[in-house]
Amino acid sequence: MKGEPRLQPPDHGDRYRHTRRHADQSTTRVKVGNVVFGGERVVVAAGPCSVEPGGSLLRIAQAVAESGATLLRGGAFKPRTSPYDFQGLGPEGLQLLAAARAETGLPIVTEVLDPRDVDLVARHADMFQVGSRSVQNYPLLREVAAAGLPVLLKRGMMTTVDEWLSSAEYLLDAGVVGVVLCERGIRTFETSTRNTLDLNSVAYLRTRTHLPLIVDPSHAAGDASLVPALSRAAVAVGADGLLVEVHTDPTQAYSDGDQSLTPQDFTRTVAACRAIARALNRDL
Amino acid sequence: MKGEPRLQPPDHGDRYRHTRRHADQSTTRVKVGNVVFGGERVVVAAGPCSVEPGGSLLRIAQAVAESGATLLRGGAFKPRTSPYDFQGLGPEGLQLLAAARAETGLPIVTEVLDPRDVDLVARHADMFQVGSRSVQNYPLLREVAAAGLPVLLKRGMMTTVDEWLSSAEYLLDAGVVGVVLCERGIRTFETSTRNTLDLNSVAYLRTRTHLPLIVDPSHAAGDASLVPALSRAAVAVGADGLLVEVHTDPTQAYSDGDQSLTPQDFTRTVAACRAIARALNRDL
Amino acid sequence: MKGEPRLQPPDHGDRYRHTRRHADQSTTRVKVGNVVFGGERVVVAAGPCSVEPGGSLLRIAQAVAESGATLLRGGAFKPRTSPYDFQGLGPEGLQLLAAARAETGLPIVTEVLDPRDVDLVARHADMFQVGSRSVQNYPLLREVAAAGLPVLLKRGMMTTVDEWLSSAEYLLDAGVVGVVLCERGIRTFETSTRNTLDLNSVAYLRTRTHLPLIVDPSHAAGDASLVPALSRAAVAVGADGLLVEVHTDPTQAYSDGDQSLTPQDFTRTVAACRAIARALNRDL
Amino acid sequence: MKGEPRLQPPDHGDRYRHTRRHADQSTTRVKVGNVVFGGERVVVAAGPCSVEPGGSLLRIAQAVAESGATLLRGGAFKPRTSPYDFQGLGPEGLQLLAAARAETGLPIVTEVLDPRDVDLVARHADMFQVGSRSVQNYPLLREVAAAGLPVLLKRGMMTTVDEWLSSAEYLLDAGVVGVVLCERGIRTFETSTRNTLDLNSVAYLRTRTHLPLIVDPSHAAGDASLVPALSRAAVAVGADGLLVEVHTDPTQAYSDGDQSLTPQDFTRTVAACRAIARALNRDL
Repeated sequence: MKGEPRLQPPDHGDRYRHTRRHADQSTTRVKVGNVVFGGERVVVAAGPCSVEPGGSLLRIAQAVAESGATLLRGGAFKPRTSPYDFQGLGPEGLQLLAAARAETGLPIVTEVLDPRDVDLVARHADMFQVGSRSVQNYPLLREVAAAGLPVLLKRGMMTTVDEWLSSAEYLLDAGVVGVVLCERGIRTFETSTRNTLDLNSVAYLRTRTHLPLIVDPSHAAGDASLVPALSRAAVAVGADGLLVEVHTDPTQAYSDGDQSLTPQDFTRTVAACRAIARALNRDL
Repeated sequence: MKGEPRLQPPDHGDRYRHTRRHADQSTTRVKVGNVVFGGERVVVAAGPCSVEPGGSLLRIAQAVAESGATLLRGGAFKPRTSPYDFQGLGPEGLQLLAAARAETGLPIVTEVLDPRDVDLVARHADMFQVGSRSVQNYPLLREVAAAGLPVLLKRGMMTTVDEWLSSAEYLLDAGVVGVVLCERGIRTFETSTRNTLDLNSVAYLRTRTHLPLIVDPSHAAGDASLVPALSRAAVAVGADGLLVEVHTDPTQAYSDGDQSLTPQDFTRTVAACRAIARALNRDL
Repeated sequence: MKGEPRLQPPDHGDRYRHTRRHADQSTTRVKVGNVVFGGERVVVAAGPCSVEPGGSLLRIAQAVAESGATLLRGGAFKPRTSPYDFQGLGPEGLQLLAAARAETGLPIVTEVLDPRDVDLVARHADMFQVGSRSVQNYPLLREVAAAGLPVLLKRGMMTTVDEWLSSAEYLLDAGVVGVVLCERGIRTFETSTRNTLDLNSVAYLRTRTHLPLIVDPSHAAGDASLVPALSRAAVAVGADGLLVEVHTDPTQAYSDGDQSLTPQDFTRTVAACRAIARALNRDL
Repeated sequence: MKGEPRLQPPDHGDRYRHTRRHADQSTTRVKVGNVVFGGERVVVAAGPCSVEPGGSLLRIAQAVAESGATLLRGGAFKPRTSPYDFQGLGPEGLQLLAAARAETGLPIVTEVLDPRDVDLVARHADMFQVGSRSVQNYPLLREVAAAGLPVLLKRGMMTTVDEWLSSAEYLLDAGVVGVVLCERGIRTFETSTRNTLDLNSVAYLRTRTHLPLIVDPSHAAGDASLVPALSRAAVAVGADGLLVEVHTDPTQAYSDGDQSLTPQDFTRTVAACRAIARALNRDL
């Protein structure tokens, strides 16, 4: 290559130019409908893992709204490890989400997997979720960034903090309207729980980036009985929100039933988290 | 081996017979002087990483006592990765610890590394610490169990929850008077922090064992700026205590200065943790 | 959900129905041009990390062909952690690859990242590479499976053997013409090398699947000086092939220069690997 | 601490002063009886996991000697995760080892766990083994270093290469007569095999230290069917020796039967490894 010009010179600028927190900078606020991530109030997003046929989504949405959730989560496109597992309802799931929003007023966050589905999802959702398996799917990141909705970017289960921030850089460099980072547990040698919730990352990233930071205790635990304690810890460490799986009948859930709270347990969890938030001069 | 009797038949009994929590069993209380682990009150143990020559230990002990610590930690025997690093003051360090106790009234927890030092340490300390590198040092576990003091058993940075509980079984099977388990972070792929604090383990072990569970945020973080947030999370997840490194002059500490809180920051951290404890109907 | 029919019942069949090796089944042969993976001969694929502008690709292709490589690798679409790094030449890179094939006769394996690029890549390449970051990109897997070319499926740096095989199930379930699995190192706590080459996986998968298994020592090492030894180990453990990064001027490479062998070192590595293959009654 | 002198100033010298390989330095030879580690010949040490009562040790020793092993391994003191598992025969096991040496001429390597047992073990063994759980047991390292026998230092299952070398520094700094490093697999997220054999470490350490490097494929695999392939890989990567578990009746072994080769499989494995060694201009 000697003597030939490099097509694209190495970039010696700040590799975290869009995500970096500058001195005295406050957390950027990201609006999704009437919900604000990054403000005084800790946001609670809740709902089922998968959108399922029939009326269960609406029942769950009404239950979580009553308990204090202000955003509805649910997957219509599901990235499943095996091709023989339920893959999500697809477009029908998006319509069910939109119907639940119409009834409850809760804005919707839902995952998109395929760059070719971005426009479709954008027509129904209020916020994209880019999931753990897609955090380094760069064509997808570029496509969602251009679609005009904010993005909830989950950490990959073996993504370093640096790689995760770099993926947020892709979104911001491509003009996304807002990014919220979501810690959801990392893969470690420990197998007594599904993943290891890394709250170090929340404490560390708070000093490093101005983006709002939320926590998904459900996927980290893989066991509903651990979710209340991990939710409390997430609020105490300073997270700007929670993303919790709730199902009115966890034993019948199409996916992730073991880690889904019942509405009753969710209500109690929200109350304990609110007490902690207030002890720290926030609200929830 | 056919036809030959096995010297020691495999044990088909409960491998967690001493550590297992039975239905409706409450957390076992472990007393160290007038301090009780496992009760309503969250215990705060604090002090320097290493006991250092001169008057610094006493100054630190007085400072942490004023801020709400009720137990003094400090290492006289230090397990250091390199033979060329400071290895601790040894017996002189034990005497400094005893002198600090005499002045402040704080009982002492300190590490023992060598089974041949157990009697010596027992003459000065109120509680043994078995450190991360020693959690599977079975001759040491048997020796400390026989010495009549309670044991703070740290999780190894590479130890599963099952292995950690099995090490507690060694202690209890050998007649130890009390065991407190201390989560201190595990080694993962993530290197932005020193280790990854695993609060899943606290939530999970609460259902599995009756032993008190405490958290060391300092070693997990490796950075003092993260310790306040992780301390809050530990109290919120339900830990029975904290073990925090504090130094009156962190930049001059013989070891682990980067992760040591100043007394001022420690005071603020205790206050925030107390507010969380009270929000959860405990105290601190 | 009680009383409502499940849209798609859980599949109780063999989750590894397409990938599982049955008793006495031999390794499936996968043809790429005149190259056969899974036969007696160990296949050597080599080339630069990235296709670069100018004549370097052709020079490298000629060099590796002379040294015993029978397949040319090179990336036109590059998944880079940072948006500010070189992202590959794209369509121009594909044309350079096709030109190198025309000159040297070596069939081409190259990565595809975006389902929308599958047809374009299929027009130039002989084999798709699905890279580490895409191993669980299920829309991409379905798209490449339908495109009529065999697929080299790299293990993710964070993917278990079970997850990796499940991704191969996606390909086979969607009718792919052939799959070759490529171990490339996993992410562990050890940072002295870029990743940890997991040759256990090759030995283990040999009994579990009929698919050919190859090894990429370059990404696992991240350091050219380790590649010869790891290449030898891969052949000795029983791999059906090697995927090696070679560059005529590593210090000027657009990406991964540190781990690229020079043609001279590559020639020596091939010779040592051939001696091992023959000692084990294979050839190379 | 201002104004007070530091008891022991930080050491600014080379932290790897004894273990570091200097330019053009060849591998240090370590003699154990008539066996030489670090020379042209690859050493094979073999034997049961645990020394068991009765005649099995002698039968195994005779079998492995016939197949090409030149060193006998076997544990009399066993570090077991659970206190309810077989803990080794202790002194009786050492006598059985000495008797097997008298019959077969094979020198003995056996583990020591407790600094108080070092003299006892030294009276029977030819080489100490410091096992994975003891690699950072610094009092033990100092004690074995002073006892006049060479030491086989296993890597801990979650010990970095730097930490492992630092433990060898402890031994060399305390005057040990010889150290051989033994890679035995590390703990990772992958659970399909017991540990992940890290052959990167052997390739990497070859450039970094002058100490002989051997590999234990048995503990890394946890499954005898994988041991032949991993043994071949270890020789191919350039290891100076193998440490292999062999049992004449694996189903009756007191410990680690699943990973023990039969004498027949061991014989075949040695033959394949010898062919590879010769292809690389060594012998075995």
